Amino acid sequence: MSKPYVLGVDIGGTNTVFGIVDARGQVIASDSIKTQKHTNFDDYIAELHDGVMRLLNAHDAEDKIHGIGIGAPNGNYYTGEIQNPPNLPWGPIVPLAEKVSKAFGGVPVAVTNDANAAALGEMTYGAARGMKDFIMITLGTGVGSGIVVNGQLVYGHDGFAGELGHITVKRNNGRICGCGRTGCLEAYCSATGVARTAREFLEIRTEPSILRNLQIEDITSKDVYDAAVAGDKLAKEIFDYTGTILGQAFADMVAFSSPQAIILFGGLAKSGELLMRPLKESFEKSLFPIYRGKTKILLSELKESDAAVLGASALGWEAKYRYEGV
Amino acid sequence: MSKPYVLGVDIGGTNTVFGIVDARGQVIASDSIKTQKHTNFDDYIAELHDGVMRLLNAHDAEDKIHGIGIGAPNGNYYTGEIQNPPNLPWGPIVPLAEKVSKAFGGVPVAVTNDANAAALGEMTYGAARGMKDFIMITLGTGVGSGIVVNGQLVYGHDGFAGELGHITVKRNNGRICGCGRTGCLEAYCSATGVARTAREFLEIRTEPSILRNLQIEDITSKDVYDAAVAGDKLAKEIFDYTGTILGQAFADMVAFSSPQAIILFGGLAKSGELLMRPLKESFEKSLFPIYRGKTKILLSELKESDAAVLGASALGWEAKYRYEGV
Repeated sequence: MSKPYVLGVDIGGTNTVFGIVDARGQVIASDSIKTQKHTNFDDYIAELHDGVMRLLNAHDAEDKIHGIGIGAPNGNYYTGEIQNPPNLPWGPIVPLAEKVSKAFGGVPVAVTNDANAAALGEMTYGAARGMKDFIMITLGTGVGSGIVVNGQLVYGHDGFAGELGHITVKRNNGRICGCGRTGCLEAYCSATGVARTAREFLEIRTEPSILRNLQIEDITSKDVYDAAVAGDKLAKEIFDYTGTILGQAFADMVAFSSPQAIILFGGLAKSGELLMRPLKESFEKSLFPIYRGKTKILLSELKESDAAVLGASALGWEAKYRYEGV
Repeated sequence: MSKPYVLGVDIGGTNTVFGIVDARGQVIASDSIKTQKHTNFDDYIAELHDGVMRLLNAHDAEDKIHGIGIGAPNGNYYTGEIQNPPNLPWGPIVPLAEKVSKAFGGVPVAVTNDANAAALGEMTYGAARGMKDFIMITLGTGVGSGIVVNGQLVYGHDGFAGELGHITVKRNNGRICGCGRTGCLEAYCSATGVARTAREFLEIRTEPSILRNLQIEDITSKDVYDAAVAGDKLAKEIFDYTGTILGQAFADMVAFSSPQAIILFGGLAKSGELLMRPLKESFEKSLFPIYRGKTKILLSELKESDAAVLGASALGWEAKYRYEGV
């Protein structure tokens, strides 16, 4: 193969990580730049180009890149743009695929959002290998999702399908969500949702808990996890509450696409049985009878440090957009 | 084309309707038999075969059938079987595709469930022509759904995807559903759900209503419709309640597949603005911001008398299963 590598780029709110990946999913080398250093998008692209070229030169790979795959918040697969991202400084619409392809002399580029990139990575290199129907759920600061149906990512008619963090799990008196609505899954089952549950439980209830030794407004999901591991009963109940809501929401997702598995990724997914036991119990109990015992709940098999780049890179193999003016 | 027709078969709880359909979606001729007359499945197939052959002979079409498409409750596209249907007399597993293909000398057969057949019909001949992403919702005795993503029906890993009538719309004190769970969409937004809402409202509330002239246990959704059309305030509120719940549920569906349209079919869908106004209001209000103003709510464009047969017949063009022992 004349071009044996793809470039994976993961644009996060803080860092932009990029790596050279081969066809077996090995990350040959990777590096990163600060995402927010330049408020001018062209300056950002120039720095990204410099960083990538250094990496390519160091590995004798300048002419070996088949395509570039990019995962970005609100990245749109159809248009190659970043559209109205909540935490990036470059304005409402950024022509990401065009600018990157142009900077790299017309190399094909494909763009998607970060959760879709994670799903692609899992399908190509991780726990979803061989699966044609699965749902990837990222449990981080928020709740993201990438949905695969019949072997293809679900983009919807506008490129924005798969916002399962924003299905409504509480119709009355639901928590206010960052999206401006109330009762969203993300307001309960993200890392920040767990911290909110902790604050609610500590205020409403009276039992002792080692969480009461902390400043209530500073409590994080990590604090709750540590307390639960140390045997704190209230902290365990916070995980029960989180897992129960998550399991109910997953049951509704199964009624949509009947996936072979739901695969969890992200910090909160590493809570082990504290989360998985109530989650699986609630999930099976909530399923429409025809689906019971069929859909697995699995953890991502990708190394977290590589996952974002791997996921984005998987898109590089099928990248089609190519800047023509070079 | 040597075989210019397909046969569409719609197996309902009461009648089995079948029709000869041409490539433009014209129903050349149709007839029906009683579904429940024979408890022995082979006897049922023999009668279906006789009825179809009579129709084919009368239209000189015996050797002109490209394929047979069948919509049936719990029809499984992957296996060609009917699996655990709630209202059919032939036992838990019926090898429908095999028996039909055998009876018709090896003609290719494809099977799916009734709501998926309706979605296919709409995509091929109705309101979803040209759409690659849409959701078909049938509002009848129950609530059924057929989901199309990227131009393909969503079957899921087991063939049973798309039971959106059984997503949970009320988590606490939800109504008992026919599926054994509580709070399902179907328990609220089907014809029977509307009748249940009427009984609840009449019991809990004290306002006058012409519905109070009826035996409360006999009230149907048709009665509620007639009362609302006559200006009955309580009856209108029943439609407001139904439309509001339906709109909230639709907003969650959009977060999954971001469809171009949600298309309504079935008796309750013919309630006009009584249902559509509260439905659309609640839908837009409940949508995650990125989706607002993008997804249409439409009514089916298929003639109800032809719709089921047309939908099933659309599957006949791509039917692949063929009984080999003939």
